[in-house]
Amino acid sequence: MASEVRLALVGSTGAVGQEMLKILEERDFPVKELICLADPREAGSKVRFKGEEYTVVGASPEAFKKADIAMFAVGTEVSKMLAPEALKNNCVVIDNSYAFRLDKDVPLVVPEVNAGDIKLHRGIIANPNCSTIIMVVAINPIHQRARLKRVIVSTYQAVSGAGKAGLDELDQHISAAMTGQEPKLEVFQHPIAFNLIPHIDEFVEEDYTREEMKMVWESRKIMHEPDLKIAATAVRVPVYRSHSESINLETENPLTPDQVRSILSQAPGIIVQDDPGAKLYPMPLYTSNKDQVFVGRIRRDISLGENGVVIWVAADQIRKGAATNAIQIAEVVVEENLY
Amino acid sequence: MASEVRLALVGSTGAVGQEMLKILEERDFPVKELICLADPREAGSKVRFKGEEYTVVGASPEAFKKADIAMFAVGTEVSKMLAPEALKNNCVVIDNSYAFRLDKDVPLVVPEVNAGDIKLHRGIIANPNCSTIIMVVAINPIHQRARLKRVIVSTYQAVSGAGKAGLDELDQHISAAMTGQEPKLEVFQHPIAFNLIPHIDEFVEEDYTREEMKMVWESRKIMHEPDLKIAATAVRVPVYRSHSESINLETENPLTPDQVRSILSQAPGIIVQDDPGAKLYPMPLYTSNKDQVFVGRIRRDISLGENGVVIWVAADQIRKGAATNAIQIAEVVVEENLY
Repeated sequence: MASEVRLALVGSTGAVGQEMLKILEERDFPVKELICLADPREAGSKVRFKGEEYTVVGASPEAFKKADIAMFAVGTEVSKMLAPEALKNNCVVIDNSYAFRLDKDVPLVVPEVNAGDIKLHRGIIANPNCSTIIMVVAINPIHQRARLKRVIVSTYQAVSGAGKAGLDELDQHISAAMTGQEPKLEVFQHPIAFNLIPHIDEFVEEDYTREEMKMVWESRKIMHEPDLKIAATAVRVPVYRSHSESINLETENPLTPDQVRSILSQAPGIIVQDDPGAKLYPMPLYTSNKDQVFVGRIRRDISLGENGVVIWVAADQIRKGAATNAIQIAEVVVEENLY
Repeated sequence: MASEVRLALVGSTGAVGQEMLKILEERDFPVKELICLADPREAGSKVRFKGEEYTVVGASPEAFKKADIAMFAVGTEVSKMLAPEALKNNCVVIDNSYAFRLDKDVPLVVPEVNAGDIKLHRGIIANPNCSTIIMVVAINPIHQRARLKRVIVSTYQAVSGAGKAGLDELDQHISAAMTGQEPKLEVFQHPIAFNLIPHIDEFVEEDYTREEMKMVWESRKIMHEPDLKIAATAVRVPVYRSHSESINLETENPLTPDQVRSILSQAPGIIVQDDPGAKLYPMPLYTSNKDQVFVGRIRRDISLGENGVVIWVAADQIRKGAATNAIQIAEVVVEENLY
C-alpha cells in the first residue's frame, strides 16, 4: 500500500465498529495512527487493536484534526452532524449510515461492483445497506452477463442487524419463552424468539419499509441501473448473525444454472455452495464471521423458462454487509491515493 | 348435518392425528363411533376425545370394517398400504399424505377453493401439502378476480412441519446451542436453532425439492389451472408452529392493494391483518392454534406496475395446513351424503 494512514473510527465501541477493528487488523490495513471515537458518554472506555489498548475519546469536531480517513459506524443522525466536521478537517469520510447514500455527489460503493466510483468522491463515500450489499455482490455478475430485467427478493434477516442490542433481545426473548415470562420489547416491534417479523425499519411509501426500499434505491445506484425493477420483502428471523435472501431473477438473455454457477464461481467476493445431493447450500450458521457472499440453490426459475434463475444467498451482514465492505473501500482510497 | 358417522382415525397418536381429535370435538363433528388406529407398536395407548378415553388399536385391514369414513394422518407408505384396505370395506378415505394427491381419480381439495371436487371422489379424497393449502386459500380469491399469470413464493416453515419430532429437535438444538453441546440431528439435515435450512423433503427435479414442487403441482390441480406458472423456495426456520410465505403475484388484469384487501376480507377462511402503522401483520407466533389463513403486507409489486401484488401470509400448518382442512373435507362428505 502507498502510505500509512491516520484513521479515525467513529462508533468504535458498537457492533460494526468493533468488527471494523478486527478486520483492520486481519487485513493489515496501514494504520499509522488510530483515533477511537464514540458517544461522549463512552469516553474513557477502552478498545483493543493489534494487542494494544486504546482509550475511546468522545466524538467532537476537533477529533478529526489529526485524521486522514474517518470511518463512521454510527446512526444516521450522528453521521449527519459529524461528517461535515470531518470534511472541514480534510478527512475522507467512509460512512456506514443511511445519511448520504442517495446524495448525488456521494459514491455508494460495493467494491466488487463499482469500485471505480470511489475516485469520484468529494469527501464522503457511503457504505450501502447490509441486505443490499449482499444482494448486489451476488446478482451483479449475472447482470453483467445476461442483463437483469427484474429482481424479486425475500429476506431472512438476523437480529444483529439491530446491533448488539438485537442479539441481547433475542437471548432475552428466548429465555422468556422458555420460562413463560413476558419478553421485553426494546429493539424489536414484537417478540422475535420463535417468531418472524415482516417489518424492518419504518414504513415509507406504498406500504414498503425503508429496509425494502433501500434494496431498490441503493442497488440501482450501485449497479448504475436507475430503472432496474426490484421488489423486496424484508423479514426479521430468530438468527443471531448473517442475513439470507431468496432471490428470483428475470434476465434479458437466456442463462442456464450451470452458466450461473460458472459465472458466480469466478466472480469476486463470492463462494458458490451448491451441491444439493451433499446437503450443501448457504446457511447463516456457517456463513458468519466470513467475508464472502455465499450462493447456492442455483436453479432455473421454472415460472419463467430460460430467462429466469433462482438463487439462495447468505452472508455475514456485520462483515461483508458493513465492516468489511467499508474497509475494502478504505483500501481503495489508500491504494489509489484518493485522500 | 345429515347423519352420524363411524369414523376411523389412522395415526391418532401423531401431531396431526391429535390435532384432528381436538378439531373434531371443537367443530362438533357428528361422530357416532370413533376408532382410533395407529402403528401396532402404539396399540393399547390411550387418546382422549370429548372427555372420554379411547384405546388405540393397531391399524390393520380388519379395523376398517366398522367405519364409514377413515381419516389418514400418517406417512405416504402407510397410506399406500392401508388406504386400499379401507376402500375394500367401503370406507371413504380422507388422506393427509402425499400418496394419492396427484392421482387423476383422486380429488385434491381445499374446501375454500374447490369443494365441488369432493363429490367426484371414487373412495379417496386427498388433503394437500400444508404450504400449498395456506397459499391457495390466499391467492385463489385474487385469481378469481384478476387471473394469476405467475406466482413466486418463498416460505418460512415451522419445525412442527416435521411433527412432534421436529418440535423436540428445535428444543434440543436450542439447549445445545445455549450450553455449547453438539446438536443431535435426527429430523433435520443441519442444526435448526438460530439457523435456516433451505431444504425441505428431498431434491426431485431441476434442483427443486419435493416440498417446492408440491406447491407447483398441487396448487395447479386444486385451482384447476394446469399451466399456472409457479416457482417456490422452501426454507425451514426456527419457529415452532405456523408456516409463513412471502408471495409475489403477477395478474392478467390490474388490481390495486385496496381491491386486494377488499377481496380477501370477503373471502372464506381468511383474516386480513394489514395495518402497518399499527404494526399489524401476520406473524407465526400469533397465528398458531387458529384455523384461518392470515394475510397482510398487501402492496403493489413495484417491479411490475399495476398488474402485480405482494402479500405476506401466515397460518397454522397443523390446523388449516392439515387437520382442519381434512375435517372440512369430511364435513362436506357427511353433509352431502358422499359416503
